[in-house]
Amino acid sequence: MINKQGLKIAVIGGGSSYTPELVEGLIQGYHDMPVAELWLVDIEAGKMKLDIVGNLARRMVRKAGIHMEVHLTLNRREAIKDADFISTQIRVGLLEARKLDEHIPIRHGVVGQETTGPGGMFKALRTIPVILDICRDIEELAPNAWMLNFTNPAGMITEAVTKYSKVKTVGLCNSPINFQKFLAEVYNVDENRVLPEFVGINHLHWVTSALVDGEEKLPEILAGDREYSAKNVPTVGWDSDFLRSLGAVPTYYLKYYYMMTEKYEEMKEALGRDGTRADVVSRVEKELFELYKDEALEEKPKQLEQRGGAYYSEAAVKLMRSLYQGSNDIQTLNVPNGSVYDFLPEDASIEINCVVTGQGPIPLMPTNVPEHVKGLLHAVKAYESMAIKAAVSGDRDLALQAITHHPLVPSVAVGRAILDEMLEAHMAHLPLFFED
Amino acid sequence: MINKQGLKIAVIGGGSSYTPELVEGLIQGYHDMPVAELWLVDIEAGKMKLDIVGNLARRMVRKAGIHMEVHLTLNRREAIKDADFISTQIRVGLLEARKLDEHIPIRHGVVGQETTGPGGMFKALRTIPVILDICRDIEELAPNAWMLNFTNPAGMITEAVTKYSKVKTVGLCNSPINFQKFLAEVYNVDENRVLPEFVGINHLHWVTSALVDGEEKLPEILAGDREYSAKNVPTVGWDSDFLRSLGAVPTYYLKYYYMMTEKYEEMKEALGRDGTRADVVSRVEKELFELYKDEALEEKPKQLEQRGGAYYSEAAVKLMRSLYQGSNDIQTLNVPNGSVYDFLPEDASIEINCVVTGQGPIPLMPTNVPEHVKGLLHAVKAYESMAIKAAVSGDRDLALQAITHHPLVPSVAVGRAILDEMLEAHMAHLPLFFED
Amino acid sequence: MINKQGLKIAVIGGGSSYTPELVEGLIQGYHDMPVAELWLVDIEAGKMKLDIVGNLARRMVRKAGIHMEVHLTLNRREAIKDADFISTQIRVGLLEARKLDEHIPIRHGVVGQETTGPGGMFKALRTIPVILDICRDIEELAPNAWMLNFTNPAGMITEAVTKYSKVKTVGLCNSPINFQKFLAEVYNVDENRVLPEFVGINHLHWVTSALVDGEEKLPEILAGDREYSAKNVPTVGWDSDFLRSLGAVPTYYLKYYYMMTEKYEEMKEALGRDGTRADVVSRVEKELFELYKDEALEEKPKQLEQRGGAYYSEAAVKLMRSLYQGSNDIQTLNVPNGSVYDFLPEDASIEINCVVTGQGPIPLMPTNVPEHVKGLLHAVKAYESMAIKAAVSGDRDLALQAITHHPLVPSVAVGRAILDEMLEAHMAHLPLFFED
Amino acid sequence: MINKQGLKIAVIGGGSSYTPELVEGLIQGYHDMPVAELWLVDIEAGKMKLDIVGNLARRMVRKAGIHMEVHLTLNRREAIKDADFISTQIRVGLLEARKLDEHIPIRHGVVGQETTGPGGMFKALRTIPVILDICRDIEELAPNAWMLNFTNPAGMITEAVTKYSKVKTVGLCNSPINFQKFLAEVYNVDENRVLPEFVGINHLHWVTSALVDGEEKLPEILAGDREYSAKNVPTVGWDSDFLRSLGAVPTYYLKYYYMMTEKYEEMKEALGRDGTRADVVSRVEKELFELYKDEALEEKPKQLEQRGGAYYSEAAVKLMRSLYQGSNDIQTLNVPNGSVYDFLPEDASIEINCVVTGQGPIPLMPTNVPEHVKGLLHAVKAYESMAIKAAVSGDRDLALQAITHHPLVPSVAVGRAILDEMLEAHMAHLPLFFED
Repeated sequence: MINKQGLKIAVIGGGSSYTPELVEGLIQGYHDMPVAELWLVDIEAGKMKLDIVGNLARRMVRKAGIHMEVHLTLNRREAIKDADFISTQIRVGLLEARKLDEHIPIRHGVVGQETTGPGGMFKALRTIPVILDICRDIEELAPNAWMLNFTNPAGMITEAVTKYSKVKTVGLCNSPINFQKFLAEVYNVDENRVLPEFVGINHLHWVTSALVDGEEKLPEILAGDREYSAKNVPTVGWDSDFLRSLGAVPTYYLKYYYMMTEKYEEMKEALGRDGTRADVVSRVEKELFELYKDEALEEKPKQLEQRGGAYYSEAAVKLMRSLYQGSNDIQTLNVPNGSVYDFLPEDASIEINCVVTGQGPIPLMPTNVPEHVKGLLHAVKAYESMAIKAAVSGDRDLALQAITHHPLVPSVAVGRAILDEMLEAHMAHLPLFFED
Repeated sequence: MINKQGLKIAVIGGGSSYTPELVEGLIQGYHDMPVAELWLVDIEAGKMKLDIVGNLARRMVRKAGIHMEVHLTLNRREAIKDADFISTQIRVGLLEARKLDEHIPIRHGVVGQETTGPGGMFKALRTIPVILDICRDIEELAPNAWMLNFTNPAGMITEAVTKYSKVKTVGLCNSPINFQKFLAEVYNVDENRVLPEFVGINHLHWVTSALVDGEEKLPEILAGDREYSAKNVPTVGWDSDFLRSLGAVPTYYLKYYYMMTEKYEEMKEALGRDGTRADVVSRVEKELFELYKDEALEEKPKQLEQRGGAYYSEAAVKLMRSLYQGSNDIQTLNVPNGSVYDFLPEDASIEINCVVTGQGPIPLMPTNVPEHVKGLLHAVKAYESMAIKAAVSGDRDLALQAITHHPLVPSVAVGRAILDEMLEAHMAHLPLFFED
Repeated sequence: MINKQGLKIAVIGGGSSYTPELVEGLIQGYHDMPVAELWLVDIEAGKMKLDIVGNLARRMVRKAGIHMEVHLTLNRREAIKDADFISTQIRVGLLEARKLDEHIPIRHGVVGQETTGPGGMFKALRTIPVILDICRDIEELAPNAWMLNFTNPAGMITEAVTKYSKVKTVGLCNSPINFQKFLAEVYNVDENRVLPEFVGINHLHWVTSALVDGEEKLPEILAGDREYSAKNVPTVGWDSDFLRSLGAVPTYYLKYYYMMTEKYEEMKEALGRDGTRADVVSRVEKELFELYKDEALEEKPKQLEQRGGAYYSEAAVKLMRSLYQGSNDIQTLNVPNGSVYDFLPEDASIEINCVVTGQGPIPLMPTNVPEHVKGLLHAVKAYESMAIKAAVSGDRDLALQAITHHPLVPSVAVGRAILDEMLEAHMAHLPLFFED
Repeated sequence: MINKQGLKIAVIGGGSSYTPELVEGLIQGYHDMPVAELWLVDIEAGKMKLDIVGNLARRMVRKAGIHMEVHLTLNRREAIKDADFISTQIRVGLLEARKLDEHIPIRHGVVGQETTGPGGMFKALRTIPVILDICRDIEELAPNAWMLNFTNPAGMITEAVTKYSKVKTVGLCNSPINFQKFLAEVYNVDENRVLPEFVGINHLHWVTSALVDGEEKLPEILAGDREYSAKNVPTVGWDSDFLRSLGAVPTYYLKYYYMMTEKYEEMKEALGRDGTRADVVSRVEKELFELYKDEALEEKPKQLEQRGGAYYSEAAVKLMRSLYQGSNDIQTLNVPNGSVYDFLPEDASIEINCVVTGQGPIPLMPTNVPEHVKGLLHAVKAYESMAIKAAVSGDRDLALQAITHHPLVPSVAVGRAILDEMLEAHMAHLPLFFED
């Protein structure tokens, strides 16, 4: 679409506290990708936040001196119509629901987390029908648009869109871009001189190669003391022998699997002390919106960086720009497996290095897939496939199979107990499970 | 080999309490498969048992009035030389080692079992080098022989033979034949009128179809109250919703995975009450050998059936006869995967229905592989592959990866603790791990 | 369906000269599979033949003294309704069309044959829509019936049914059963003691193993002077070095590929002398129907054996009986590839050894697929897939791609010339290609 | 190797008339990739050419004013020792052998061409053992070097190196870079703004996507009048319907398959008029070396461009630079298949878009593999695999299978006749086929 002038971008869940970061990215990238209209859309319950964020966005644009109209609306169809890019960052059930996702599993002895384990499963069950509803609008009103999905669990949501709609979609996570920045920082080079290889799926990947100016630095990284992690995942250190012989840097989400006992204890303890992550985020958000309200504020406040989603908007703007220009650069994205991993279904979503052309991302073949990661990868993807099917059908049998086959759930009985309690707790947001 | 007269069969571990059952099978099948020489071979430590069992065998043969010489020897090479069939049923470290396999994991909160989990892994680590040593003899002295492996963990042992020797081998378990008999009994028909389909690997299979006279009875079986189980696996009942929606009958070993919490508790409790399964077996064996000593005994005593390995010898004799005659009948065996499951390596051992020709077994394509079983299957096979590599190399890094990636082990730390304790405990039987 | 009494069988194209053979088979197998109703159905143009054949069938049944009603009808739906087995042996355009299939390619320097090359392609283009129309009736009137397809090109027709209908179908050819009989005859044993392995697709298979009582006889067969062939395929001898190093016995249809030049010359010469195979068959059929008319005739006349389709009905009755009884024996059938050959699509039809259960055939994994056969197999299957798509769509572009990609067609220009002439010649039977 | 100074490059077959182009490329790229030593090595028979070319190279370097030593030698091991890059451009049997490759098949009614058909097969049979001998030196003397193979048939030679040596190798052809330049020229943009996608193998590829600034231009290209071709392949026009419905731009070498009849006639006619391509090249080379001798010449003469290998050296220098710098740009290269095409062996060589890192090329997953190309691709690769095996073993049986399975050879008899005549004619260069 290189010759097109005046792009239209729609942000579903535009009242999110993340939005100012995205706006900053669009402003900085305006020269390469001129956005004429930015539509922030939210639901009735989010109207107040939308207004606050939207007004900040307008002040930012005004200060930048560019011609980008900022529209605020509760009418999703109006926002979607003829859009070129649509990003989704929604939270069905808001932070209250997240709190339940985090609390309930813990009570049954299982990790309670927003994207991993039963918590992630229920976030998917609530979110997928809503996202597919959005897709129906896109298919009708903006069939050529690219949908950039940030909504967690990003891999499952993206997979659901691929399986059950015709919308062109890419899933995005900030984890790969953070690793890239970490690597560039460790070796003190520009980001474009590093090339980490990601094997796996969203929130379950391994870095199996780490090139810096073409040299392989993985053994150094694995041997080093420096641990790569994210601010919002409290760290328990790795067993260094294990890490070295694993031959790959596991994402910090893999601690839930490789250090299940310790992570569970840590979470349980934190729950008593700070509440869940949802509670923490809730406090941070409250503060952020206080800042956003300040009419004098004309740029993204520094405090936003503590929110956890560092570089999300950088990843998003980079992707939009490459799709717009056909720049054929390498980015790590969530796309359908195709024939990359022969042990996963073709329509399974994977997280992988891609060359981003004007027609979409093309995966690079992984150069090194350690044998021992395949089993765990397959097991988690099998759970994900079942959970996605359960989400679109409201089938309790499938939901029971999904939760039981999750590697973090120790037995049918525990799985069923969590399932029953969570279905009850989230009833309002799971209409398909409560139809006659 | 149909025209060959006078077969020679060698039984490695011939002093086993199971041997009388095998002898009975050979006597009953003598007409179809005339065995001229039966060689029972054992190690020095098993000489007394060998003599007792061997003498009983001779009395049984004499009573049957057939011309089958029974040889007893401690010289393995003599037994193997020019044999047509060689069966292996050995226990490296004897029941003492088994006791450790069962006790140590339990202390760390993990299932302690002879074939599943860390216990099975250590049985494999001890046994594989010994079996491969036997294979060296077979390659030299009986290169055309078929090796029938009963030694547990049968899938891993068979896979190791396939990967690291040229010996023609088939792995055998009595679990499939028991299910077949169960099915025939439920429907009150001859065994040859039932055809259950097995998907998976040894001790981790699912019955995905159950034909009786060509009619599919699986839904009935899954809905029914009758549970299929084995005498030596104490039963905790299945969740009936789970079983029905699983769409397959899981082997009782799958309870260790699907009901991990309950099985662990059950084992721990039993440990306090009866000791481990090794302790129970130890008592049963003592009684059996007392019976075997009786010079008046000329047939297999009824009590042997309580030993746990029901129909082992029936399966063995059936397989030998089909290989001998080229009878092209269907049996469930452990053979290399080839291209049956595209998500497993070609040389991985799987347990599957085969047509047994005179040249060996040919797998039947599975008709129904439930999506949800693939992940677990892949995860366990990934562990098995690593454990086998560790067994032949004595590599502790690989052993750590293997134990950690086992689905029943909750974390690196727990895996490492069990590993360290078991390496120490089994040191005498793990020379490769203690070389300089 | 073992307990079902009174099977109903429908034969589409029941006026065929082959029918008496089928009737003979049903009579001989009556004890194991009691057929209550045999419905012979044909089109208006075949009414006279239907009456002749039908009356012979009634005399045969009467003589056998069994209770099998023989119905003659022009009403296909009546014949299909509630049938258990439906066999199809139709010839769209009759022998006149076959003559064109054989003549036209020859004029352009290309093999002209009923199932191979452009002739086979046009037979498929004419037949597939008619067969799918029959399938619509079966889906409605006999959804549980098995359709046994004999209609050539049997592989492509069966594949079309699998791809475009819900009818349960198996494709049958007499070529495998003939090889089995040949093998049994050479070694002077009963048929059930031989097991040849077939790799490939209909009319393009290789025998890669030939077990007799479990012994591998393939090297002997390949080295021997005796050539396996069929009466209706004139023989040019194989190059013995080529055959030996091929490591497999190619079906006689493979001569069209491996000996293209010679087969073309042979056909061209035969055309001048005897006319095409269609002309020969036409004369044979005329004689047969004269015999059939004889009211004194109460059994299948010997002359039928010269017709070319030896043992077709034996194969058919064997298959029906095994599906009926669930006898789990091994037969060579045309079934969907599934994951047997990883280089062919899952829904591609292959010809392979299967265990026939009451629920349908289960393929045995091939034990030996020579590398050099894969390329040719893939190339021919690629042509078949395109031709099938062309048949159901009437798309000339696809037809041009299909004919050009056929290994026997030397160039786009030759392919297009044949295509244009044949489309014109067969216009009446290719309505989809001549719609506005 | 970015920090390494003073690269050493060895050119095997350095006396080739192409060498000045390579030297020009190294001079132009000197700033990015400083080459300290350029070793041109040739065999005794090529000494005169080597001196002429080497002296021209020295004059070119001197004029450019850079510090690159040009060494001329007949000692291959000296040239290879510690080299960073080794390029191979050899012709075993010289142009005399090529003449036979082109003449003999034509006499038997088959295309005679340097890389396609029996001619290409014999070039491979002669060349592979020599290349593997070079590899033995590289393994010993420069184990970390990259070998860039230009020697035709480039795909087969590269595959042989991958299969039978440990040398890191990439195969290069100028055909993809020429298409890229053609595309850039048609749309009047810089080359880095176009991205054609290549599916297939060397000299048998299809362009299945043609992006210009991210827009898909393939339909336009297929519909257009402009034909993409190469100067050294005389053109017969494509059937426009065929091209459009093929949905991909076939390389001009595919005319030997899709237009076999016409290409054969054209070649036969040209043979009578101009002699073979070998004769033409022979004349061109004579003229080139006369020019090279001129002591006043200090740059690559324009006439070299008519030689046929346009942009070979550009491709080579680009590849070396990217491997040196780790520049992660996209180039089309011959690399092992890995799991890109599931119907080809993992070690088969394919021609595909790759991201070139400092550790080697990483293939991009093809986005569009037309069904109809798979069959032909598989058939040709099957021939190639057999021919490679024949080359390393000298096995005539395999050679007979290879030539017979080549899609351009119509029968065993024709294949055998060509084989016998060519084995005899090339005897001096096929020692493995004439050992006792």
